[in-house]
Amino acid sequence: MIKEKKKILNDPVYGFINMPQGISFELIEHSIFQRLRRIKQLGLTYYVYPGAIHTRFQHTLGASFLMTLALDTLRSKDVNISNKEYQAAQNAILLHDIGHGPFSHSLEHSIIEGISHEDLSLQFMEYLNIHFNGKLETAIQIFKNQYPKKFLHQLVSSQLDVDRLDYLRRDSFFTGVSEGVVGSDRIIKMLNVHDNNLVVDAKGVYSIEKFLIARRLMYWQVYLHKTVVAADQLLIRLLKRAKELAAQKVSLFATPAFEFFLYNTVHLSDLKEKSGIQNYTVLELFAQLDDNDIIASIKTWINHNDYILSYLSKSLINRDLYKIELQKQVFDNKKIKNLKTKLQNDFSLNEEDLKYFLLEGIVSNNAYNPLEGNINILQKNGSLIDIAETSDILQLSILSKTIEKHYLSYPKGE
Amino acid sequence: MIKEKKKILNDPVYGFINMPQGISFELIEHSIFQRLRRIKQLGLTYYVYPGAIHTRFQHTLGASFLMTLALDTLRSKDVNISNKEYQAAQNAILLHDIGHGPFSHSLEHSIIEGISHEDLSLQFMEYLNIHFNGKLETAIQIFKNQYPKKFLHQLVSSQLDVDRLDYLRRDSFFTGVSEGVVGSDRIIKMLNVHDNNLVVDAKGVYSIEKFLIARRLMYWQVYLHKTVVAADQLLIRLLKRAKELAAQKVSLFATPAFEFFLYNTVHLSDLKEKSGIQNYTVLELFAQLDDNDIIASIKTWINHNDYILSYLSKSLINRDLYKIELQKQVFDNKKIKNLKTKLQNDFSLNEEDLKYFLLEGIVSNNAYNPLEGNINILQKNGSLIDIAETSDILQLSILSKTIEKHYLSYPKGE
Amino acid sequence: MIKEKKKILNDPVYGFINMPQGISFELIEHSIFQRLRRIKQLGLTYYVYPGAIHTRFQHTLGASFLMTLALDTLRSKDVNISNKEYQAAQNAILLHDIGHGPFSHSLEHSIIEGISHEDLSLQFMEYLNIHFNGKLETAIQIFKNQYPKKFLHQLVSSQLDVDRLDYLRRDSFFTGVSEGVVGSDRIIKMLNVHDNNLVVDAKGVYSIEKFLIARRLMYWQVYLHKTVVAADQLLIRLLKRAKELAAQKVSLFATPAFEFFLYNTVHLSDLKEKSGIQNYTVLELFAQLDDNDIIASIKTWINHNDYILSYLSKSLINRDLYKIELQKQVFDNKKIKNLKTKLQNDFSLNEEDLKYFLLEGIVSNNAYNPLEGNINILQKNGSLIDIAETSDILQLSILSKTIEKHYLSYPKGE
Amino acid sequence: MIKEKKKILNDPVYGFINMPQGISFELIEHSIFQRLRRIKQLGLTYYVYPGAIHTRFQHTLGASFLMTLALDTLRSKDVNISNKEYQAAQNAILLHDIGHGPFSHSLEHSIIEGISHEDLSLQFMEYLNIHFNGKLETAIQIFKNQYPKKFLHQLVSSQLDVDRLDYLRRDSFFTGVSEGVVGSDRIIKMLNVHDNNLVVDAKGVYSIEKFLIARRLMYWQVYLHKTVVAADQLLIRLLKRAKELAAQKVSLFATPAFEFFLYNTVHLSDLKEKSGIQNYTVLELFAQLDDNDIIASIKTWINHNDYILSYLSKSLINRDLYKIELQKQVFDNKKIKNLKTKLQNDFSLNEEDLKYFLLEGIVSNNAYNPLEGNINILQKNGSLIDIAETSDILQLSILSKTIEKHYLSYPKGE
Repeated sequence: MIKEKKKILNDPVYGFINMPQGISFELIEHSIFQRLRRIKQLGLTYYVYPGAIHTRFQHTLGASFLMTLALDTLRSKDVNISNKEYQAAQNAILLHDIGHGPFSHSLEHSIIEGISHEDLSLQFMEYLNIHFNGKLETAIQIFKNQYPKKFLHQLVSSQLDVDRLDYLRRDSFFTGVSEGVVGSDRIIKMLNVHDNNLVVDAKGVYSIEKFLIARRLMYWQVYLHKTVVAADQLLIRLLKRAKELAAQKVSLFATPAFEFFLYNTVHLSDLKEKSGIQNYTVLELFAQLDDNDIIASIKTWINHNDYILSYLSKSLINRDLYKIELQKQVFDNKKIKNLKTKLQNDFSLNEEDLKYFLLEGIVSNNAYNPLEGNINILQKNGSLIDIAETSDILQLSILSKTIEKHYLSYPKGE
Repeated sequence: MIKEKKKILNDPVYGFINMPQGISFELIEHSIFQRLRRIKQLGLTYYVYPGAIHTRFQHTLGASFLMTLALDTLRSKDVNISNKEYQAAQNAILLHDIGHGPFSHSLEHSIIEGISHEDLSLQFMEYLNIHFNGKLETAIQIFKNQYPKKFLHQLVSSQLDVDRLDYLRRDSFFTGVSEGVVGSDRIIKMLNVHDNNLVVDAKGVYSIEKFLIARRLMYWQVYLHKTVVAADQLLIRLLKRAKELAAQKVSLFATPAFEFFLYNTVHLSDLKEKSGIQNYTVLELFAQLDDNDIIASIKTWINHNDYILSYLSKSLINRDLYKIELQKQVFDNKKIKNLKTKLQNDFSLNEEDLKYFLLEGIVSNNAYNPLEGNINILQKNGSLIDIAETSDILQLSILSKTIEKHYLSYPKGE
Repeated sequence: MIKEKKKILNDPVYGFINMPQGISFELIEHSIFQRLRRIKQLGLTYYVYPGAIHTRFQHTLGASFLMTLALDTLRSKDVNISNKEYQAAQNAILLHDIGHGPFSHSLEHSIIEGISHEDLSLQFMEYLNIHFNGKLETAIQIFKNQYPKKFLHQLVSSQLDVDRLDYLRRDSFFTGVSEGVVGSDRIIKMLNVHDNNLVVDAKGVYSIEKFLIARRLMYWQVYLHKTVVAADQLLIRLLKRAKELAAQKVSLFATPAFEFFLYNTVHLSDLKEKSGIQNYTVLELFAQLDDNDIIASIKTWINHNDYILSYLSKSLINRDLYKIELQKQVFDNKKIKNLKTKLQNDFSLNEEDLKYFLLEGIVSNNAYNPLEGNINILQKNGSLIDIAETSDILQLSILSKTIEKHYLSYPKGE
Repeated sequence: MIKEKKKILNDPVYGFINMPQGISFELIEHSIFQRLRRIKQLGLTYYVYPGAIHTRFQHTLGASFLMTLALDTLRSKDVNISNKEYQAAQNAILLHDIGHGPFSHSLEHSIIEGISHEDLSLQFMEYLNIHFNGKLETAIQIFKNQYPKKFLHQLVSSQLDVDRLDYLRRDSFFTGVSEGVVGSDRIIKMLNVHDNNLVVDAKGVYSIEKFLIARRLMYWQVYLHKTVVAADQLLIRLLKRAKELAAQKVSLFATPAFEFFLYNTVHLSDLKEKSGIQNYTVLELFAQLDDNDIIASIKTWINHNDYILSYLSKSLINRDLYKIELQKQVFDNKKIKNLKTKLQNDFSLNEEDLKYFLLEGIVSNNAYNPLEGNINILQKNGSLIDIAETSDILQLSILSKTIEKHYLSYPKGE
């Protein structure tokens, strides 16, 4: 009984939730999983929404809770799911974000060049599968969409996966943007399986519409909020500057694991190699990184004698962020030119260093999974129809388009 | 101070709300207003959603609370609203539903032929204006859209009025259909005035999209839920049968006020006439009607010796509702013919009485205000643009179309 | 599957709840149960808290939902509960309030003299048991505490029964008195069985303390709120006056069922007798009464030529309630005498009729189950200890005392 | 208007809140205040309640919001509060936690010996007061209780201060322990001033009772939860070991600011001295510390060659916490002796190092402000009475007692 009790968790979003058992529980207790406690789900978003400091750990447990609800619903509709598959689906969702590093939406390509968090997730899954004597095999198959019952993969990754259902609701909860709330309860009750694919019962169509609209609202109000973009881009430039200095062998304070990735260029194929630090492989070293390393290191850079690094660090840490403009159109060349001249004068910058003071670029809703793949509605007569055709009100083609915005960001007062 | 305290109200939806003061408070205390406590907002919807028993009284106070928030927001944006206008807008919203009778969405044209609740509202407003020595004059002007500052009328009645903002949120709350929740807080904070018209600040566009989608969801999941339609239509036929019998001078138990309207045909021009009951005018008699009269009377009709009246009453009271089919297409003639034959046999009905056992017709979202009139978004550059053009995702023309569904409803087992 | 869907219900308090199945579902569909839809849980409390119009129907389904949670929890702790017992416990809770009539806390002894709602509940249970061919036998045994597994009765009726857990939470929800919220989830998870008795696991002791304090708060802030008492007492006097007139053969408008109880004095032994109305027994006639009969009838009495009846009816219906004073001490005789003199003058009353204008008496927290019977806490070492001894902070003897307050109520302006 | 908008904040607990303006806003923007974003309110509590990662920044803004509600309430009750006092009270609450360092409940006496966070708060206030040209003078007076209107200090620090009202509600929200929720709205509406002291209107007495019980529940369920204590004590020992090693000149990785406090012993009088790092004073260096320094440094210690430091660090970071026993009684000497022998064998420890594997001590509810000072209830007759005398149910003397528990904590498997 005492054991039982251990496994109930208070989640502010769903209330009491049961922790998964057996190997899933062991997985959660592993240090590589526990590390997700130290990685915020939404990076620097808390600079706009102070409550948005929830972690990938919380999100993953939440998604795992929704997975049990979904699997139970499907079973109640006579979908055949063996106990082994049930557990594997659990593990697959527990592992789906395991490759995330600190501030991964911003730093994915800064810390480790050319390696996505999905690549890293797979590397970690294989690593853990060895540790767990091959018991994660089916979970990995599900994750890779190599398992025959495709709907299990779709629960982990698709237009209506439990990942999104949890993160939209959780991000909405912790940011306080209550309009983003998604009726995950009802959507899950409407899930069904048809020809091995995940579908939605006809009665659920309005809930799906609302889910799509809530998601869109969250993009613009949270994920691509202009101040969040300003903070993200500042962080990216800051890391870039640090790597630039590191490449020039300039000394930078950093925690050992972070130092390794600052001073070394790592490729996918290097992950299993020894890092030269203690006995760790590069992958194991990566597993030691979290938000604390980044922030603790940046804080010290405020005192660094490289003016640019110091300036950027100070701006970020003290939330004295750059001003940002965000628009659909390309920015006027003349405007940019004027800004450049002014910045060069005010900060005595050479051409080269301007890029740290005038941040230019494009942001898109890519990172947050636009609508690719469809959502099938199961009609009462047993036929399937795509939501894009059922819904007379939504222009769903819009949702599937990557929306891009141009930004221009520079110190206040310029 | 004690007086102050009296005027704070616990509202399950918004928490503590301040009761309006002065003449608005006296208005609330008037018996014609108090009667709204005895009229459910959503008629028989509680047969599907047991919690949906909230009253027009609650809704009206809620809308009045939102009105103060909206007026305060506008004032904070330097919109000029005098104290007199402030109070009048309050009164206008307090009076906006004053003409509703019991189950008015179903019975509007059964109890009093050809008189809408809007007509009745105006009659009551004039009646009360006399009682309050003309102090409701400006409120009535606002209600009728005859007041120069049009935005005040638009707060009471338009695509984004506080009426809708309250009822969508309240209906969502009490039905438990949490997906219908509308971010009334945020929408109100985004309201503004431009050229005397109510507009929405640019930042609010996603909230508006969500509001429109939530409304649509409420239509289909609540207001036009098939079982709600079945109950409504049953009630309409039941009243029709009662009036038919009354026209034939058959004796029917009813409360005196209800009896008057069963046995008399009333036109708009009759409302100020004496009813012959006590000293009451027809309008005053109407003000005595509420849900209790209808239900208490119908209950006794279960024992009436008219088989049809008794059958319908029993079905309604014991929630042994007719089966209902609801579809976009016209029903197949053959199907209807077969049903008729079967019903005539099973219930030994003549042609004439079939209409009480085979309910046919069309329901539309008319009653709940489809999108007529536009919602203007105030761009940052000061220009206006219709939401239909701003929103790339919503096919707003769809929302403005009256959607109709054909229904066919008949006793279970047929 | 369609059947399944029918049985999910939206409850504003708990979200989606599963409707009980089998005979329990049939029970809910029975007209005697459906009638609970028309009886408010808190009588006239909505005159103070406008949201408090929830019904005994909602409460009973809510309690039934908590019963399943409690039974599932106990089973998970290896308490032996057969499927038959599970269903019977369900039925027992569904039936626990079946004997309530309209405004029963006020009218229990006005409509039917000397018969409590518990007596009536038993009568209805036996009546329904015949209808259901004896299938409610075990449920009735549980209700009467004649079933060997006493904890099943205690779930229905004891200090920590699901009845209270639901009504406190529900009353708190609908009144908007959020402080009354009870952690029913956690308390239920802490339930256990020891020696056939319901007990609470040691970890639950603080939740119990909070439950008791929340209950106390609800007494004073809601159940015995002075304006609620004023309305209740006015209704009691009003019914008394009506019965007095009825006894004098004065004609009073009332629905037939209500009329029967106004003009006849009924005893427990009469319930199975024929009423003389149609073919109904007295009990069946009682089952036809609900809030609508009372309110619809009282509304007509406003026009009655008995001044007292008319005055009281008008005060009640238009919420022009008497002023009330509520205090621990007996009221000063002199004060009462002065009031009487004034009232007699102002209303030209004789001594006899004064009782309708100066309402005197005592209210107590009796009606809402003070703390009788104890709550046992299961220590980690397996021994039991009463909450009164575990809790060092609560003076529990206080909770078990009936608290009485004297009231004095009379028309405003006196 | 754009400026206005900047100052609305989404708080998951209260919804939209207005940011304070003027100097208060500048204060919030100062780096010393911004640093509170990086200090968790509840230290390691997230090891039990994963949601409990909210920060002192969020809490402080929440308390500041409640302060405006309280001040507005008092003004509406004709309590005289000038605009200057209003702003000063705001600033006082904004500054009340400014002296907190990382994990301050655990590390208060580890990082800086003998200096409490209250001492540090005062130091920071004076520091900031210079920065703001003396404009914080009145705020500091209020904080120190040197301002004549004592109720202003009591709003910042007393039995019913807005600090507690916020943290109880916020901690309850983020832990998901919904039973700890406090009716801050209602309590604030009941505040009043009598003879310059903060009092509670008579109607609020039940809310106060509930507040006290909720607080007690939070102590035992959250603040002194045994696993939280286990984590806290582990962290304390870990820091102790680190300082021990530092005293022996053993090299330890740490961020520069943290390194300073590990290798130096600091007294209150040293705070204004130069630290020798850059040009910072000791106080300024302290202001650079936050949770990131501690965690980032401890993570590296896992690889340290001091076995004890490494063992403790690994346990903490991977949440492989020690087992803990918590009880009222002193632990049996024999039991302790046996444990010691076993631990010495299993870990080959000398007498000296045992203290890092067998953690002994006492925890008390001291840190979280037991009931000292009273809560005065303002009776209707204008007299004051202590809640301890008004409440017949609470043994308030219990709440004012420091409750102590003995703990014994050691590696699992022992």
